[in-house]
Amino acid sequence: MIQLEELYDEMVQLRRDFHEKPELSFFEKETPAFIAGYLRHLGLEVRTGVGGNGVVAKITGRKQGKTVALRADFDALPIQDEKEVSYKSKVPGVMHACGHDAHTAMLLCVAKVLVDMKEELCGTIVLIHQFAEEQAPGGAKPMIEAGCLDGVDAIFGLHFWSMIPYGKVGWRNGPIMAAADRFNLTINGKGGHGAAPHETVDPIVTGTSFIQQLQHIVSRSIDPLKSAVVTVGQFHAGNSFNVIPDKAEIEGTVRTFDPAVQSFIMARMEKLAENVCESAGGSGHFVYTKGYPAVVNHEAETKIVAASAETVVGAENTFEMTPMMGGEDFAYYLQKIPGSFFFVGAGNEETGAVYPHHHPKFDLDERAMLIGGKILLTTALLYLHGN
Amino acid sequence: MIQLEELYDEMVQLRRDFHEKPELSFFEKETPAFIAGYLRHLGLEVRTGVGGNGVVAKITGRKQGKTVALRADFDALPIQDEKEVSYKSKVPGVMHACGHDAHTAMLLCVAKVLVDMKEELCGTIVLIHQFAEEQAPGGAKPMIEAGCLDGVDAIFGLHFWSMIPYGKVGWRNGPIMAAADRFNLTINGKGGHGAAPHETVDPIVTGTSFIQQLQHIVSRSIDPLKSAVVTVGQFHAGNSFNVIPDKAEIEGTVRTFDPAVQSFIMARMEKLAENVCESAGGSGHFVYTKGYPAVVNHEAETKIVAASAETVVGAENTFEMTPMMGGEDFAYYLQKIPGSFFFVGAGNEETGAVYPHHHPKFDLDERAMLIGGKILLTTALLYLHGN
Amino acid sequence: MIQLEELYDEMVQLRRDFHEKPELSFFEKETPAFIAGYLRHLGLEVRTGVGGNGVVAKITGRKQGKTVALRADFDALPIQDEKEVSYKSKVPGVMHACGHDAHTAMLLCVAKVLVDMKEELCGTIVLIHQFAEEQAPGGAKPMIEAGCLDGVDAIFGLHFWSMIPYGKVGWRNGPIMAAADRFNLTINGKGGHGAAPHETVDPIVTGTSFIQQLQHIVSRSIDPLKSAVVTVGQFHAGNSFNVIPDKAEIEGTVRTFDPAVQSFIMARMEKLAENVCESAGGSGHFVYTKGYPAVVNHEAETKIVAASAETVVGAENTFEMTPMMGGEDFAYYLQKIPGSFFFVGAGNEETGAVYPHHHPKFDLDERAMLIGGKILLTTALLYLHGN
Amino acid sequence: MIQLEELYDEMVQLRRDFHEKPELSFFEKETPAFIAGYLRHLGLEVRTGVGGNGVVAKITGRKQGKTVALRADFDALPIQDEKEVSYKSKVPGVMHACGHDAHTAMLLCVAKVLVDMKEELCGTIVLIHQFAEEQAPGGAKPMIEAGCLDGVDAIFGLHFWSMIPYGKVGWRNGPIMAAADRFNLTINGKGGHGAAPHETVDPIVTGTSFIQQLQHIVSRSIDPLKSAVVTVGQFHAGNSFNVIPDKAEIEGTVRTFDPAVQSFIMARMEKLAENVCESAGGSGHFVYTKGYPAVVNHEAETKIVAASAETVVGAENTFEMTPMMGGEDFAYYLQKIPGSFFFVGAGNEETGAVYPHHHPKFDLDERAMLIGGKILLTTALLYLHGN
Repeated sequence: MIQLEELYDEMVQLRRDFHEKPELSFFEKETPAFIAGYLRHLGLEVRTGVGGNGVVAKITGRKQGKTVALRADFDALPIQDEKEVSYKSKVPGVMHACGHDAHTAMLLCVAKVLVDMKEELCGTIVLIHQFAEEQAPGGAKPMIEAGCLDGVDAIFGLHFWSMIPYGKVGWRNGPIMAAADRFNLTINGKGGHGAAPHETVDPIVTGTSFIQQLQHIVSRSIDPLKSAVVTVGQFHAGNSFNVIPDKAEIEGTVRTFDPAVQSFIMARMEKLAENVCESAGGSGHFVYTKGYPAVVNHEAETKIVAASAETVVGAENTFEMTPMMGGEDFAYYLQKIPGSFFFVGAGNEETGAVYPHHHPKFDLDERAMLIGGKILLTTALLYLHGN
Repeated sequence: MIQLEELYDEMVQLRRDFHEKPELSFFEKETPAFIAGYLRHLGLEVRTGVGGNGVVAKITGRKQGKTVALRADFDALPIQDEKEVSYKSKVPGVMHACGHDAHTAMLLCVAKVLVDMKEELCGTIVLIHQFAEEQAPGGAKPMIEAGCLDGVDAIFGLHFWSMIPYGKVGWRNGPIMAAADRFNLTINGKGGHGAAPHETVDPIVTGTSFIQQLQHIVSRSIDPLKSAVVTVGQFHAGNSFNVIPDKAEIEGTVRTFDPAVQSFIMARMEKLAENVCESAGGSGHFVYTKGYPAVVNHEAETKIVAASAETVVGAENTFEMTPMMGGEDFAYYLQKIPGSFFFVGAGNEETGAVYPHHHPKFDLDERAMLIGGKILLTTALLYLHGN
Repeated sequence: MIQLEELYDEMVQLRRDFHEKPELSFFEKETPAFIAGYLRHLGLEVRTGVGGNGVVAKITGRKQGKTVALRADFDALPIQDEKEVSYKSKVPGVMHACGHDAHTAMLLCVAKVLVDMKEELCGTIVLIHQFAEEQAPGGAKPMIEAGCLDGVDAIFGLHFWSMIPYGKVGWRNGPIMAAADRFNLTINGKGGHGAAPHETVDPIVTGTSFIQQLQHIVSRSIDPLKSAVVTVGQFHAGNSFNVIPDKAEIEGTVRTFDPAVQSFIMARMEKLAENVCESAGGSGHFVYTKGYPAVVNHEAETKIVAASAETVVGAENTFEMTPMMGGEDFAYYLQKIPGSFFFVGAGNEETGAVYPHHHPKFDLDERAMLIGGKILLTTALLYLHGN
Repeated sequence: MIQLEELYDEMVQLRRDFHEKPELSFFEKETPAFIAGYLRHLGLEVRTGVGGNGVVAKITGRKQGKTVALRADFDALPIQDEKEVSYKSKVPGVMHACGHDAHTAMLLCVAKVLVDMKEELCGTIVLIHQFAEEQAPGGAKPMIEAGCLDGVDAIFGLHFWSMIPYGKVGWRNGPIMAAADRFNLTINGKGGHGAAPHETVDPIVTGTSFIQQLQHIVSRSIDPLKSAVVTVGQFHAGNSFNVIPDKAEIEGTVRTFDPAVQSFIMARMEKLAENVCESAGGSGHFVYTKGYPAVVNHEAETKIVAASAETVVGAENTFEMTPMMGGEDFAYYLQKIPGSFFFVGAGNEETGAVYPHHHPKFDLDERAMLIGGKILLTTALLYLHGN
């Protein structure tokens, strides 16, 4: 039987080919076409255009059993590649700056191994090649609506991570990535001369009252043993030192793990925005946009991931992660069925894989694909066959 | 004809007698009885119990003319006299710490002079001896309702003032004393353990948001050329360092000269109190109690006062005052009829008259009574007879 | 002798000529050249280039006496003229949007009258044609340093004002225009991911603390009977909803009449900026730039202006103004010698002179020049000759 | 060999005897005397007066081995017992409202069992009967200084807990109880009349600025995945609505698990207090008093506790706790040597054991003593003998 190691060169080649031809979220065309061709070439039945640009294929084992899905995303980002490497992006302003190219290359090779061992397989493997992870509302949701999880018992996925050193693997039961929401507040005051504040409704001072009281949500109203972040990222108002402007624009993000906390914050902010603006004699237009929900891993499936990771890299190289405050639409799969999402170290100072994700010089240690692929493979087999 | 100078010793004696037997606002009994007796002894017709404990008498001139009122208040304060003087208060905890004893003594002697010159007088003098100036709702209002201003064309009054040196006299057209209101806010939160703020609604933090935004009324919403003060004098909440209390109590005062500014502040505060408490998940009970309105002098009558003062102390010893932020129920008389209220210096370092009004060691330079009485006399005659 | 009325057509023509050829502050060239030529043509000795682009001339009366200066400014603004009139500005983006053209035309004609009555004149008239009033540091200061006030006993000036109806004249003893200062605060925090605030120093929240406490200066630390404004006109920070920025930029203006109040505010703000930024773990760069000081009229000279105005428009058309919170570098003259600055109504709904100063459609009722000129003339003569 | 079950009636009797005669922290006298007598009666060598009122005894096994300490505290609280039970406190205003009576009764009976099995014991058991847990600086520290941990390899302790149902047992590796600190801030402003704020330094408004910015510590500067609480429990200032007071008093508590977080908060608060007061023109006196540090359990010892608990109540009745924000001076033992502290459910609706600790009606289900005792016994034996 083929070992994943034997496919390492192919995996690298695939990844670099994807890297040279990145495609933006929701605008993926050649990437899914290539994926579909590759999987068909392996003899698989392939559905394309799933929920948009998604690709789904099934590997049916000879023996009956459960069904497990493996997911890799394949979209890129609107960032200019600034690395100096042979496989640098050929598309100006677009780049695989988050490693989805590697996710996809890895899953294709994992598929090749699984197809090769079909005869031994008890149960079914569903390959979910997802489009548009980078941009809300994301591809996971429409792919689920299009049936990609139908009949699936559990799902697994991973993220290569340049901030974790190559060789290390992180797992976590429960929340592992946060719900990442966005809010905007336009404060409508009444502009006028800076020397006559009483003829105005000052939206800047009003905005500062809003932001001050916003702090009290986290400092006073959230369980100190739970996590929540309310950040204002932008405050813009006025264009002259001596004129009170009509409006102030405030924008920010809310991060939570617990939906009850998220709902509480959303409701509190709405009320606060309304009340503060009204108190000052103005009015506010507040919009809260939910992003992806929190990624909440399931216990049994996480134990399988942890056990698989121990097999591949040794117990001393696996660790229980603290949650990340960033978001992932893998969350939607885990709202439907059990599963687990984990992180595979891909940082390496020697190879220059030291930049954070979404950085123009982002790169990863490609050997991480072998580790990730093996863990995913082991996980799938453990899930289907038990140990 | 009698000159006021000749009555100086009597004036001092009268003042000291009142000083020894002070009576609290609304509880005046012997003082008005004495006043009534004195005035009847002068041959005047006297109304007592006017609007409560007020005393009103009329001096009708031989010739017809206008009617002018002169007002002096006669109530004392719940303060323990700490002066060491022969005429120290004999009533424990009660004291003439604001000079109303001197106002009254002066007006009685002025009355004696006026009665003596009745034959020359064109018009009528109304003597208004007012009770309860020190405590809202005050005696002026019920005395007006009881008719003390009926048929009166103009009114004059004065305050001796220990913070102005003896010999000086201050007048001012327009607002001279502020409207002095009171507000209370009880913030109803939800108490709990200091280590579990999320199970509480923190009334202390909520109170600080209220007070912070309260500042914006004066800093942003009042015309910088107008005057307003919003002061929080008390904040009380909690009785343990590690327990979040149920309630916070906030109390303060608002001072304004312009009724429109007063109304604006009152409305803004009510809205603010409600909104801040609601934003935090609690509720507020806000009470705004109007005190005396602003004392707003009339132009023509103020000119008469200023001219009279110049006659008595010389132009170099009179000055146009800046308004005082304190309150006086003389305001009510001036809402009904024209008039003017002025300040007569009664401070003197040599005699120890250096303490502010309402201080336990308050005293005044008694010679100020002579100056005040002469100005009042001159003012009344100028008003009735012209110059 | 010539009457100013006879020069009205010339005055209008002069004003319109200036209006068509506006010159920006500090870049005035043809305007002062024309003024100098006009005055020389009247037979006067003229100094040009005074303190920059200023023009100064002297009219010496036959008889000895005091010396009085009359001032008019002649610079224009960087505003595109949007009026549809025959005398519209011919310089793109530059416009006499504040009436300095009319000030100058008026003063030239006043000079013509004064030259004509030289034989009757007791004393000397100094004509100060000032450049660069619109832009700090202004032209008044360098002109004074260049000696334009040497030997001058008093100075008078006026502003036509479209917000006051034509026919009315406003005067005021004491402060009539505010000191107008500018401040900038750059808050240097430390940027980072919106989901990890603890790794940052949040300059937005820090900025809101600064602005909240800034309010307390006016609400708590300024005498309610004095005037001060502290306005933040701009707050800019951040360019993404989920990234905490490195910096926040805050800019605003301070308006005061009393130099002690101004100094207090400046010192308090500096301390506050430093302390708030430091408390949050960041640092601040605070710059306070003084603009023109307050224009503070002198009592005796203001009485002359008021008397002159009564003569010209009748007592019922003059009024004591409330101060304006805007600035004027006439302030510098009044710091050196006595004088008074006043406002002449130039608004007229029928002629469309309804726009505020600095508005692209600003215009004024040209007849105001006649009123202003007459008052200035009368004032100068009253000052020199007494009444 | 004796089984703990056989001693249940004695345990109950002991607990009720202690309950009737509670003694306040640092004033324990009869309780330690009784304990010492009981242990001496078992034939043990007993040290009394350890570090104050502590009692320490040693049970030396026949065979050599490690040394393990078991700790129970025995002080009571200044609370009036309001329960209606036969064993109600006989000391007015003093009560065992936290279950220390039960801790002690249990440990005495555990000691009896251990003494009985001395021949089988490999190693040594140290019994630590601690005084003064309820009140900082507590009894643990002086007992350690007096040598109670000398030669001890590990320590275990427990708390009965009425908020956890009888039958359940909670354990936790790492932080299980918070560091509980206290802070006080006196803001020295300058008092004065409420109508003249500019002559004062308003300590109330200054206090609100401090409290507002205090919120930013938790909301912005603490890792959202870590826990911290900063609570203001008291704010007191002023005693009249129209007088600005001289001082404001603010008091509160800080709860943390991580010493670095604690230090950060302490330093930030000090700086903030100083800066806010200085910005307002006043000064602050800030005192931060560290209470007990966090109770941080050790991993290996916690595993033993968890295993013992599973043996006693079954795996389904044990659970990994979230940390509690309250404090315990067991923390000091764990700073010196390994160990683990755990919680034994003692709440029971049927028996009325439904009140929180420190409540005047607090009681516990006495059967919890049997569970707690067995787990402690098992833990000690597992630790000494392995499994």
